[in-house]
Amino acid sequence: MADQFVQNPVGIEPPALPALRWDEPPEGPVLVLLDQTRLPAEEVELVCTDVPALVRAIQTLAVRGAPLLGIAGAYGVALAAERGYDVDEAVALLEGARPTAVNLGYGVRRAAAAYRASVSKGENAEQAAQAALAAAKALHREDAEASVRMAEQGLALLDELLPGGGHRILTHCNTGALVSGGEGTAFAVALMAHRAGRLRRLWVDETRPLLQGARLTAYEAARSGMPYTLLTDNAAGSLFAAGEVDAVLIGADRIAADGSVANKVGSYPLAVLAKYHRVPFIVVAPTTTMDLSTPNGASIEVEQRPGQEVTEVSAPHTAVAGGVSGGLQVAPLGTQAYNPAFDVTPPDLVTAIVTEQGALSPVSGGGIAELCARSRQVTIS
Amino acid sequence: MADQFVQNPVGIEPPALPALRWDEPPEGPVLVLLDQTRLPAEEVELVCTDVPALVRAIQTLAVRGAPLLGIAGAYGVALAAERGYDVDEAVALLEGARPTAVNLGYGVRRAAAAYRASVSKGENAEQAAQAALAAAKALHREDAEASVRMAEQGLALLDELLPGGGHRILTHCNTGALVSGGEGTAFAVALMAHRAGRLRRLWVDETRPLLQGARLTAYEAARSGMPYTLLTDNAAGSLFAAGEVDAVLIGADRIAADGSVANKVGSYPLAVLAKYHRVPFIVVAPTTTMDLSTPNGASIEVEQRPGQEVTEVSAPHTAVAGGVSGGLQVAPLGTQAYNPAFDVTPPDLVTAIVTEQGALSPVSGGGIAELCARSRQVTIS
Repeated sequence: MADQFVQNPVGIEPPALPALRWDEPPEGPVLVLLDQTRLPAEEVELVCTDVPALVRAIQTLAVRGAPLLGIAGAYGVALAAERGYDVDEAVALLEGARPTAVNLGYGVRRAAAAYRASVSKGENAEQAAQAALAAAKALHREDAEASVRMAEQGLALLDELLPGGGHRILTHCNTGALVSGGEGTAFAVALMAHRAGRLRRLWVDETRPLLQGARLTAYEAARSGMPYTLLTDNAAGSLFAAGEVDAVLIGADRIAADGSVANKVGSYPLAVLAKYHRVPFIVVAPTTTMDLSTPNGASIEVEQRPGQEVTEVSAPHTAVAGGVSGGLQVAPLGTQAYNPAFDVTPPDLVTAIVTEQGALSPVSGGGIAELCARSRQVTIS
Repeated sequence: MADQFVQNPVGIEPPALPALRWDEPPEGPVLVLLDQTRLPAEEVELVCTDVPALVRAIQTLAVRGAPLLGIAGAYGVALAAERGYDVDEAVALLEGARPTAVNLGYGVRRAAAAYRASVSKGENAEQAAQAALAAAKALHREDAEASVRMAEQGLALLDELLPGGGHRILTHCNTGALVSGGEGTAFAVALMAHRAGRLRRLWVDETRPLLQGARLTAYEAARSGMPYTLLTDNAAGSLFAAGEVDAVLIGADRIAADGSVANKVGSYPLAVLAKYHRVPFIVVAPTTTMDLSTPNGASIEVEQRPGQEVTEVSAPHTAVAGGVSGGLQVAPLGTQAYNPAFDVTPPDLVTAIVTEQGALSPVSGGGIAELCARSRQVTIS
């Protein structure tokens, strides 16, 4: 397998369609999602006219990724308000759509708070809906800005930890423009390294069961002209053993007050491998992912998904959702499967957490609290 | 997910068809293989009338698993001899069919040696062919016997390491009756524990890319009425973290003189996780897997397989072979993949190696040499 150090990246091209956009056609406002279950085979947009459609899109992973879920949730509240549906009901539906991603609840609550503040000021329904929409748009914009700051902070950290450039980065799941209002979290760091001519290789874990690495990260890397190589999740060990990984960069779905990181299942084994091989394990996530009300890793609720995602394999186009399947049966019928969507990495295995407010290393509860306070200050000011 | 401690196993049923059998229909001798690429969806036999057909079956993984490859290789030599083909050519083709499994070469050389000894004694072609066939049958029988002894030794070790029974065993790839002349290696230990009412749960790694765990181990576990649960390879970390794994049991494709173990890719990350969580990591393999001419892990040649196995997913029926594919495209077209078939676990991460000659713990070069010597003595006596 050839390994090329690309000094002059060519073919840089952003994703053709944004992961999410608000639109206002004559028929009324809609939230338009790029259907991620159909990538990379097809770029198809999914138009949500109400919250149940959005909830279904969230649960089937047509829209996914911690920061993007927050933005989608906020727009969902605005959509309900704009179209005159019951906002409290919309909030409850959206908050319960997926349990682990803290950003979803954050986005929903932020738009709902703007809506309620408007109502309690005596403004009419249209004004309240506009307030919710403004909150969603602000979150969207802030996330794009946070993405740029995380990429800068992350690349600075990489350059400090690994002087000389030519980074070989291993990543898991998908953390690029498809999960963000901007260019993402961990992936945005690799992309900035690539644009600076300092990415030697992006190792892309396929990320079973839903293959977000093979389908989505490979899609984004290919579009951006990055030097990337796909591998099964269990081949990462061989790369570490061969000294082919300089750093692991992943995102996060929830960071507890003690610095424990919930992320896509398979992150924790990478953290253990990284520790064993003395390779930096870096988490890149906006401070909105931090949840001070969750004291530690043990108190993070981990979503268990249908066993079918494991007993069957799905290519793009054949969406697997709770109870409905278009996958190909692999295991014998009746096979029981264990299918946690996430795992939890304790803070002592995390070299650094990179946020839009700066990098934290070593990871500690005090540091987490400080970053959150700094973020709140920025939001308030 | 319910977890039941099955005290009274029901539904024990051996695989319907043996993984491999020699047959002599009127048309001439044949080697009949159970086509493992089509399990568990269909039980189809593949009839090999010549060595190129067998080589193709080995390369497409219709027949696979270290001990079974040795038996298949020996029968392949007998097949060539019986049908009057060039035996030297058959030996070369078979030895080169897959590079990592040492047993294949062992079986081929053993049958070839019997053939040549007969020739050099001045016996005729038919007698020499019969000598090769007798050697293959002897290896087949010895492997079945070794399987029983490994299971006994392995269960005794488990009971010693984990007093009280109720073992929760994690296994990787497929190591049962489908890889052996008997009931297998690591799987045979779990099966014996189950029959003794001491298996609480068999955790089955799906084993990407070819999903031998999901397809074959689940098939064998289901047929034997064992309590088993399937998981993606990257969910094993969550089980370790939750204290749900009492021991890891795997097979081996080659064991170097220093005790380094080459096995299905994904074994090494499990060894690192087991070490981190202080869980015994046990390798079960016949002494024919030991290769004293390979001094250490670094000198083990690891087979790199087509990237297509990673960029596509295949359900049973859609065999993926070098250059020919019936899989579903998952990654973007043109995606490069890293696809080592095996990885290497150093001896310090292996709690014990269980063979038909006894268990070795701790693992050392001296111990490996002694087990091999003991095995040779038995073969000679």
